[in-house]
Amino acid sequence: MARYMDVHEGMKGITADELREAHAADLAIEGEENVHFERAWADPESGVVYCLSEAPSREAVQRVHERTGHPAAHIHEVPLTV
Amino acid sequence: MARYMDVHEGMKGITADELREAHAADLAIEGEENVHFERAWADPESGVVYCLSEAPSREAVQRVHERTGHPAAHIHEVPLTV
Repeated sequence: MARYMDVHEGMKGITADELREAHAADLAIEGEENVHFERAWADPESGVVYCLSEAPSREAVQRVHERTGHPAAHIHEVPLTV
Repeated sequence: MARYMDVHEGMKGITADELREAHAADLAIEGEENVHFERAWADPESGVVYCLSEAPSREAVQRVHERTGHPAAHIHEVPLTV
């Protein structure tokens, strides 16, 4: 397992409810890929959303996001943290 | 006060010690700008570093990062979180 930060773009105007619903959709199926989405942060003005997860691979993160309708634009493994 | 996610690029090969030192340098002066850097995540392979902070403005975040020698490439306010 490793930690990943993924970035979504083009979500201008996203609301708190929409962020919660998107996150809940990921949580509902993440177990099938052994992924866990821990937190997400959204900027409605620029449409950028950051998601922090633990997962077996970058591909597993993307499979969950694709199935729930919001594929990530970038996914970086972030092995270092403070 | 608001929450910000900022992104650094070009830090390929960053080590755990270097990330800790950079974060400690920010913490040492952040009070002068009423900023608090909460966490940071780094990908040594791509050279991308994400920093989460609370701050009075985007400019305050950048002033701290500039003074400690690592200006951010992007800074987004992230008012929504889950």
